[in-house]
Amino acid sequence: MQWKTSIKGFLLDVTGVLYNSASDGIGEVIPGSIEAVKRLCEKSNVRFLSNESTSTREELHKKLLKLGFSIKLEHLFTPAPVSARYLNSKSLRPHLLVKEAVEAEFIDCNRKNPNCVVMGDAEECFTYDALNEAFRVLQKIDDPLLISLGNGTYILTLFFGKFYKRTDGPCLDVGGFAEALIYATNCRHTVIGKPSPEYFDAALEDMGLDSGSVVMIGDDILSDCGGAMKHGLKGVLVRTGKWKNCPNGRTTRA
Amino acid sequence: MQWKTSIKGFLLDVTGVLYNSASDGIGEVIPGSIEAVKRLCEKSNVRFLSNESTSTREELHKKLLKLGFSIKLEHLFTPAPVSARYLNSKSLRPHLLVKEAVEAEFIDCNRKNPNCVVMGDAEECFTYDALNEAFRVLQKIDDPLLISLGNGTYILTLFFGKFYKRTDGPCLDVGGFAEALIYATNCRHTVIGKPSPEYFDAALEDMGLDSGSVVMIGDDILSDCGGAMKHGLKGVLVRTGKWKNCPNGRTTRA
Repeated sequence: MQWKTSIKGFLLDVTGVLYNSASDGIGEVIPGSIEAVKRLCEKSNVRFLSNESTSTREELHKKLLKLGFSIKLEHLFTPAPVSARYLNSKSLRPHLLVKEAVEAEFIDCNRKNPNCVVMGDAEECFTYDALNEAFRVLQKIDDPLLISLGNGTYILTLFFGKFYKRTDGPCLDVGGFAEALIYATNCRHTVIGKPSPEYFDAALEDMGLDSGSVVMIGDDILSDCGGAMKHGLKGVLVRTGKWKNCPNGRTTRA
Repeated sequence: MQWKTSIKGFLLDVTGVLYNSASDGIGEVIPGSIEAVKRLCEKSNVRFLSNESTSTREELHKKLLKLGFSIKLEHLFTPAPVSARYLNSKSLRPHLLVKEAVEAEFIDCNRKNPNCVVMGDAEECFTYDALNEAFRVLQKIDDPLLISLGNGTYILTLFFGKFYKRTDGPCLDVGGFAEALIYATNCRHTVIGKPSPEYFDAALEDMGLDSGSVVMIGDDILSDCGGAMKHGLKGVLVRTGKWKNCPNGRTTRA
C-alpha cells in the first residue's frame, strides 16, 4: 500500500509498450494501451521516454497521434533533443553523425570547430567516409568525447540491445559503431538515452518529481527497468514488445 | 657471436622497411633497402611478411618490382592468401568483406553457406549494408567466428596500430569494424596477420626453419618485433617507416 500511495508519476517507454513496429513504418497499437495512457494521464504526471534516434521527436509524435494516442509533444522524450540541451549546458560543439532529418534537433547547437562527436542510429549514413570524418574530429581533440544516442552500455548489451530488428532483418545499431570509434581513438563515451542517469533525470526534472515517487514502465528489463531501478525509480516490466519477441536482441528500437 | 652464427633466416616487413607509402600509390624506396635486400637474399633464407589487405599479393609484388626490388612472388606473404589456406585447412566457408580485387585471393575457398566472416581493410566497401550482411551471417551461426586480416590485437592496439594514415588523413582500419561486429554478435575473433603466431608460422614453415633461427625486421615495435619475439624469433626494429613518423598510430599499413 505504501508503494501505491507514494507514486506521483510514470515514465513510459514507447515502442513495445504503446505500439509495435511494423513494415508499414507506422506500426500497430498494443491492445489496451491507448486507454491505459489516457487513464494514467488523467490521474498522474506522465512522460514518454524513448531511445529512438532514427527520426526526430516531432516525427515520432506525429506517428503516435496517428495511431490514436493523445500525447503532448513536450511530454515525449527522445535522446536527440535531450542531447542538444546537454551539449549546450556543457559548451560542447558537436560534429553530428545522425540521419539527415535528425540534424534539425541540433539547430540551436554551435557546430563550428567541434569538440565532440554525437552519433545516433544513422543506418545508411554510416559510410566509411562519414565514420572517418567523425574519427578525424575525435582524433584532433585532446580529450575526445563521443556521445551516442540511445545505445546500451557495454555490460548491459552483453545480454540485450546489441542490435535491433527491422522488417528486412537484424541490423547493427549505434553501439557497434561507437565501439569502432572508441577502439580507434580511446575516446570517452557518454550515452544519452536509457539506461543513462542523465536521461532519466531530464524527464524527472521536467515532471518536478524525485526518482522515489516515479515508476518506469517498459519492455526492456535492462535499459528500462534496470536503468530506472538503479537510479532510484521503481520499474515495471510489461509483457509486450521485446519482452515477448526476442530473448537475444532488441526487436524494437526504443 | 652466438646470435650471429645461429641465424639462418630473415623475415622482413614491407611498408616502412622497404619503401614508404606516398600519394602516387607507388611510394618511395627507403635508401639502401634495395641493396640490403639483395645482400640478405644472397646469403640467407628471406621472406617478406606484410599486413597489407587493401590489395592482392600480386599487386603488392608488382609494386615492389616496379620500385626496383628483386623479390619472388612466392616469398611475399600477405594476410589474404594465408587466410585462404587457413580457411581450407579448417573447412571454413567465408563470407567476405574485403575490397573487390582482394576477393580473387579466395577463389579456391568454398563460399556457399558461409560459416565464418573474413574481413580486411575494405575501406569504402565498409557500407552499412555490407556490415549488416556480415553481421547477419555471424548471427545465424551457432559459434560465430570473425577472421580479420592484419589488424592488431586489442591490447596491442591500445598503444599502436588502431588506424592508419592515407594521404587524405588518418583512416579507420579493419580493427574498429571488427570491434563493431564483436560487440553485436559476441563472436570469436581470429587475426591473420602480424602479430598472430599463425602468420609467423606460415612464413617459418615455408622457409623450413624454426623460430629460434630467424630474425624479424620491422618498423612496428609491437606487431613486428613484439609479435616475433613472443613467438620465439628475434626482433630488430628499424628506424624508418612508422618508427620515425608517428608515435601515436600507424603511418603505414604493413
